[in-house]
Amino acid sequence: MPRYKLTIEYDGTGLLGWQRQPMGPSVQEILETAVERFSGACAFVQGAGRTDAGVHATGQVAHVDLERDYRPYVVMSAINHHVKPAAVAVIAAERVPDTFHARLSANHRAYLYRILNRRAPPAVERNHVWHVPVALDVDAMIEGAAHLIGHHDFTSFRAAECQAKSPMKTLDRLAISRVGDEIRIVPEARSFLHHQVRNIVGTLKLVGAGQWRPDDVKRALDARDRSAAGPTAPPDGLYLTRVGYPAEAMLEQESRDLVDTDTDDDVE
Amino acid sequence: MPRYKLTIEYDGTGLLGWQRQPMGPSVQEILETAVERFSGACAFVQGAGRTDAGVHATGQVAHVDLERDYRPYVVMSAINHHVKPAAVAVIAAERVPDTFHARLSANHRAYLYRILNRRAPPAVERNHVWHVPVALDVDAMIEGAAHLIGHHDFTSFRAAECQAKSPMKTLDRLAISRVGDEIRIVPEARSFLHHQVRNIVGTLKLVGAGQWRPDDVKRALDARDRSAAGPTAPPDGLYLTRVGYPAEAMLEQESRDLVDTDTDDDVE
Repeated sequence: MPRYKLTIEYDGTGLLGWQRQPMGPSVQEILETAVERFSGACAFVQGAGRTDAGVHATGQVAHVDLERDYRPYVVMSAINHHVKPAAVAVIAAERVPDTFHARLSANHRAYLYRILNRRAPPAVERNHVWHVPVALDVDAMIEGAAHLIGHHDFTSFRAAECQAKSPMKTLDRLAISRVGDEIRIVPEARSFLHHQVRNIVGTLKLVGAGQWRPDDVKRALDARDRSAAGPTAPPDGLYLTRVGYPAEAMLEQESRDLVDTDTDDDVE
Repeated sequence: MPRYKLTIEYDGTGLLGWQRQPMGPSVQEILETAVERFSGACAFVQGAGRTDAGVHATGQVAHVDLERDYRPYVVMSAINHHVKPAAVAVIAAERVPDTFHARLSANHRAYLYRILNRRAPPAVERNHVWHVPVALDVDAMIEGAAHLIGHHDFTSFRAAECQAKSPMKTLDRLAISRVGDEIRIVPEARSFLHHQVRNIVGTLKLVGAGQWRPDDVKRALDARDRSAAGPTAPPDGLYLTRVGYPAEAMLEQESRDLVDTDTDDDVE
């Protein structure tokens, strides 16, 4: 069966997250239903990361196996037609080898977290930003964030329900910038623990607000205890923006070890 | 009665536009109801421009007279509390002299028009962009736009129901740029005719798509006939981003001529 890589955008507002579940609409269910409508066969859509309820994506990646060899553009157009009226769109589709796996082959993930930092609540960007009315000091946040970059035990920033085997992760980048009233936080890593990004953002917000000193972030990290770090930031401001793959994952080849123990637990 | 200048953001989706009307919710009605709830008195909220149904704003300006001398921050917070759950927010409030008039004193308006130029429909930005799936040539659009900058008779770009006394307007700026999948068009002028921005965008889209040559924009302008220009672009992509005032409009003074015949008809 031909395998397709799909790049997916969605508005997480009102959705229960990526993963299919009995209690309500999920991105996975919406996509699988759309694929079934156009292909006439049951489909399993495997995502690169299981985003939580209310989290958005502009660059989620998934793979799906289809019974027929459709042109990628046809797959994209057909899914986009059948997902209506859900706020989910396939923005790119391509044929990949059977060995490509959206989650296991991925070796890079980037998120964007948007904080609207002004007194007035959001109107145009409602549900798309975290509204923090108290003025945040971005320089202090950058200083605090520096303690998190690199290879660490992120137990303090890991959700209780996290299923990862190890709390060790390498945070490659944690860029923070202000653009007008908005503060943008861009974490990048091979993979993340459950709620890792939102727990980091919730902690850096304490630093920005002056409730914590930048050095307190290191203290929280070193404690290896969830209760030592700040609260979980809301899902509204979080976007999965990019999932990267090594060039060889996109190429047809017979024998290749796809198992990567650092990518089997990406949940945000 | 103390007069307040309000800077207002709203998501126009599902609203009938700025102006109060019997058929459904308008920004003006939402704001007037909120002011009445907190002040206990009837209020008239005068906007700088009457945006149409579905058009958004990040920098609309209005003035309102209140019976008591509230601190500006109190006015902002109270209105933002009482507009809930509408997607309308006062992002700034200040005391201005009685001679300040949101519409008549304004001497500059800026809009942003956002085109999502990719095959896949919008998910995160649904209702906030115009989706144009055919690839647009931005350089051709810039070349076409150049014919519109300056002082012209904009009859060809004016809605039939436009109430302006004259079709003569000076378009100060019409910047066009591509940012990823998005094309941003920024028109600036002292004031605009009804649908002028959306009719310009609908025309430039024809140029971008190769259906018109850039010079055809000049032909359309010179025709002084609405049917010679392109169709009206949808409201979804349009944002009123800024309304500017001369410094003296913000100052208390006894005698000043506020009547400006070029600003009495701003509608988009």
